[in-house]
Amino acid sequence: MQMTMALHRAVQLYPDRTATVFDERTRSYRESLDRVARLASALRSLGVQSGDRVAILAFNSDRYHEYLLAVPWTGAVVVPVNIRWSQSEIGYSLRESDARVLLVDDAFAPIAAALKADCTGITSVIFCGDGERPVGLHDYEELIAGADPIPDTRRGGDDLYGVFYTGGTTGLPKGVMLSHANVLASSTGVIVAGDVATRAGRTLHAAPLFHGAGLAMWSIGLLLGSTHAFVPSFTPAGVARAIEQHGITDVLLVPTMIQMLIDSPDTADADLTSLRRLQYGASAISEAVLDRARNALPGVGFVQAYGMTELAPAISLLTPEDHDQPHLRRSAGRAVAHAEVRIVDSAGQEVPRGAVGEVAVRGDSVMIGYWNRPEDTAAAIRDGWMHTGDAAYMDEAGVLYIVDRIKDMIITGGENVFSAEVENALAKHERVATCAVIGVPDTRWGERVHAVVVLTSGTTITPSELTDFCRQRIANYKVPRSVSFTDSMPLSGAGKILKRELRQQFIASNAEYDDMLIDATSPTTVG
Amino acid sequence: MQMTMALHRAVQLYPDRTATVFDERTRSYRESLDRVARLASALRSLGVQSGDRVAILAFNSDRYHEYLLAVPWTGAVVVPVNIRWSQSEIGYSLRESDARVLLVDDAFAPIAAALKADCTGITSVIFCGDGERPVGLHDYEELIAGADPIPDTRRGGDDLYGVFYTGGTTGLPKGVMLSHANVLASSTGVIVAGDVATRAGRTLHAAPLFHGAGLAMWSIGLLLGSTHAFVPSFTPAGVARAIEQHGITDVLLVPTMIQMLIDSPDTADADLTSLRRLQYGASAISEAVLDRARNALPGVGFVQAYGMTELAPAISLLTPEDHDQPHLRRSAGRAVAHAEVRIVDSAGQEVPRGAVGEVAVRGDSVMIGYWNRPEDTAAAIRDGWMHTGDAAYMDEAGVLYIVDRIKDMIITGGENVFSAEVENALAKHERVATCAVIGVPDTRWGERVHAVVVLTSGTTITPSELTDFCRQRIANYKVPRSVSFTDSMPLSGAGKILKRELRQQFIASNAEYDDMLIDATSPTTVG
Repeated sequence: MQMTMALHRAVQLYPDRTATVFDERTRSYRESLDRVARLASALRSLGVQSGDRVAILAFNSDRYHEYLLAVPWTGAVVVPVNIRWSQSEIGYSLRESDARVLLVDDAFAPIAAALKADCTGITSVIFCGDGERPVGLHDYEELIAGADPIPDTRRGGDDLYGVFYTGGTTGLPKGVMLSHANVLASSTGVIVAGDVATRAGRTLHAAPLFHGAGLAMWSIGLLLGSTHAFVPSFTPAGVARAIEQHGITDVLLVPTMIQMLIDSPDTADADLTSLRRLQYGASAISEAVLDRARNALPGVGFVQAYGMTELAPAISLLTPEDHDQPHLRRSAGRAVAHAEVRIVDSAGQEVPRGAVGEVAVRGDSVMIGYWNRPEDTAAAIRDGWMHTGDAAYMDEAGVLYIVDRIKDMIITGGENVFSAEVENALAKHERVATCAVIGVPDTRWGERVHAVVVLTSGTTITPSELTDFCRQRIANYKVPRSVSFTDSMPLSGAGKILKRELRQQFIASNAEYDDMLIDATSPTTVG
Repeated sequence: MQMTMALHRAVQLYPDRTATVFDERTRSYRESLDRVARLASALRSLGVQSGDRVAILAFNSDRYHEYLLAVPWTGAVVVPVNIRWSQSEIGYSLRESDARVLLVDDAFAPIAAALKADCTGITSVIFCGDGERPVGLHDYEELIAGADPIPDTRRGGDDLYGVFYTGGTTGLPKGVMLSHANVLASSTGVIVAGDVATRAGRTLHAAPLFHGAGLAMWSIGLLLGSTHAFVPSFTPAGVARAIEQHGITDVLLVPTMIQMLIDSPDTADADLTSLRRLQYGASAISEAVLDRARNALPGVGFVQAYGMTELAPAISLLTPEDHDQPHLRRSAGRAVAHAEVRIVDSAGQEVPRGAVGEVAVRGDSVMIGYWNRPEDTAAAIRDGWMHTGDAAYMDEAGVLYIVDRIKDMIITGGENVFSAEVENALAKHERVATCAVIGVPDTRWGERVHAVVVLTSGTTITPSELTDFCRQRIANYKVPRSVSFTDSMPLSGAGKILKRELRQQFIASNAEYDDMLIDATSPTTVG
């Protein structure tokens, strides 16, 4: 199978169904195919050859959908670039992937010339925005209007579909190579595993399409014959308005977006009753936010997907029915139909049920490897198993509980503390909007548990109030021994809190706090 | 992916769910996996090596399910033999596939020695029945009890899963080679394409498991985590009883079985209200039978699947919702998610919508080829497209209408007549139980339209009453010019009417009828 196959099928079966809607601009599947075939033709005229990389640096729009289909149509490879990165990170991913053509929208047109100068492999830049076309850039609509459609090259199966840069939370970005078969195995396997998306629905793309989860929602929607609606990026009001305006049935949001959507005063009056499925993932959700969201959206089936770009991406699902069972709500659900999921020790042996180990995954959605990084690939994929770096346990019923990133685990006085558990306890406090728990160097305990907290607007709290609150909920050794407050968290392009950066900030500015620990023999409170 | 993967997942997620039920015998998924791993071990002890063929000649049972998983588990290839064939046809398929081990049940144990003598490649015969084990045969349960489980070899992907003999309606049987990927692409693609089977349901296997449609239902049920119930073979009373007893949600029946189920006095009092989905296919259904069945089973969603063994097998589906639209009910529905379906002319070019041509299919479910028949494979699969031999047209909405097997098309006086259309008209007559329309040699018209009719029990009718009935419904040149009556049709192993045999019978016995044609200038009635 190839990613374009669902488009061909759509045009055979429901050519007049709306394929994409972006603001007032609506295109049928028939129009979508015609434009894709022309854009593919234009890319070829610009010198794009089979296997070449074509990158995009743009906010979500209907043209992103066309890009994701036209590039494989012409035989090339997509590189959806992380729009949240710095210019130097963006340049890195364009150079490393050796992109031949780059598409930019209004937001990124101003840096196009600098990027092109920095990335000598780029021969053409296409402006896919709606504003004035900058000098020196090809115009997206002119290219489509001026090109004759070409037949689909039908690259597919094990051919490379795209290079997806990831790793924003640790070290240099790595290019994850996903084949057509990887993405399609995942999308079909998710549909097989549960009633998690609406057939012939209307899917809103608010989470960024460069991200694995966004891509998966798009691919699933394509397979199910849905209409794709786009907002450039997430804002509570923009998403609420789009849901109302387009009668959206499905939307993927990351937990922080869910929280903003339900808490924002801008969305209080919005009619969200068309919504049937809210898919979430990419980072852990606190039980408190999930409960509030379920109460705020009573007619919606919540679907949690857990995974990573390297797995294209979902490998476990918490279905709407699962959400009705309280004990499952803090889990990541159960394995999808297309991937084998195991918890293994450092030797790769499966651990007993209930024991914490690393999540390892095998199956058709496991990436081809990291672009130009055979050693990283060999370190991640061992004996066919992708080692996720996530610490988790699995219960007797096969339910997966993610406890932490292995590297975010805190070892304090010889005890393992999983930051997610501590964060969950903290987040239950009504004045805590967001929090992150990290291990910081401690002369006596090796590491100690430190909490970084964003309070809900206009509230205050003392560190000891928070730690007392935690002590009623989790074991003493897990309770934060120090707390710092901030107005906002450093976030990755995918909206994940960058704990690495929090740790660096802490070390840079708080070394002297070590002396402020009141009781260093029995970790308790400290401000 | 491999066929055993869904078994591993089942044991991880719901080990205590019932996997199989056969009469009073019930086994959980955990037991099922243990028995499969032991049977695989026993097969290896009998000398079965990777890629060897292991054949089965048995009615449906829970052990058939274990066979279908244990053979790939040990790295070998399944060969489910058609139980309706003559001993010489069975011997042919065993010899041609070079089977190493054969499993037989009570019904086929009596011919096991003769088959083994005839097929020198067979080194061991396993008795998988419930009666007395014949001398010289291995006992299925003793093998399982005496073997230690072995790990799954995890053959999968493009590895050969099985050789499925087909072609009962024309010429010598051909062995269709299907890979794991072929079968799984089809099963997942069908689930993606529509709400056609019940998740975690209870599926009754009444249609024979050696047949592609039966295998697909089994594979789909496995992916959806369903319980598999088995009856040895179809009887109206047996199926009705099993539905009641096991709370069956899904059942696959061929049209003749549907007719028997709803018309049999034995099933009049049966409680079939647990049924949610009735999948049918393998041959065309008359609108009259479909209407009666939908009236008799008002809570059931009907699903028609069209396809062939070479396509693993379904490539189009008429969904439950489609059945509510009268104009769609005489169609074969729309393309599945995993296959491209086109109507082509003899040069392989797509014909305009509405024009009759041959159904051609491309995609991951297209067979590897015919076993040991590279020329037949090359004739069937051209430029990646499987040519089905079925004549059909597709309307503007992508709906497929099968009009005939290309070789069953009748050319009379230069006009194309599609036997299915004539059969559909005949079947509307309340006294017609079954009918088949064939072309027979005609000195003036080249071929003429001839009908073979089975009347409902205890009724009579004259040929001219039937042809008058047809003339009100179809064009004059399509109306049968001769009619013969019979008590039963020659059927293939899959329950299809063998038109080739009807034509041979006609030619052998009815040559003189040519002279009985009343009006040879304007084809009308003749008895």
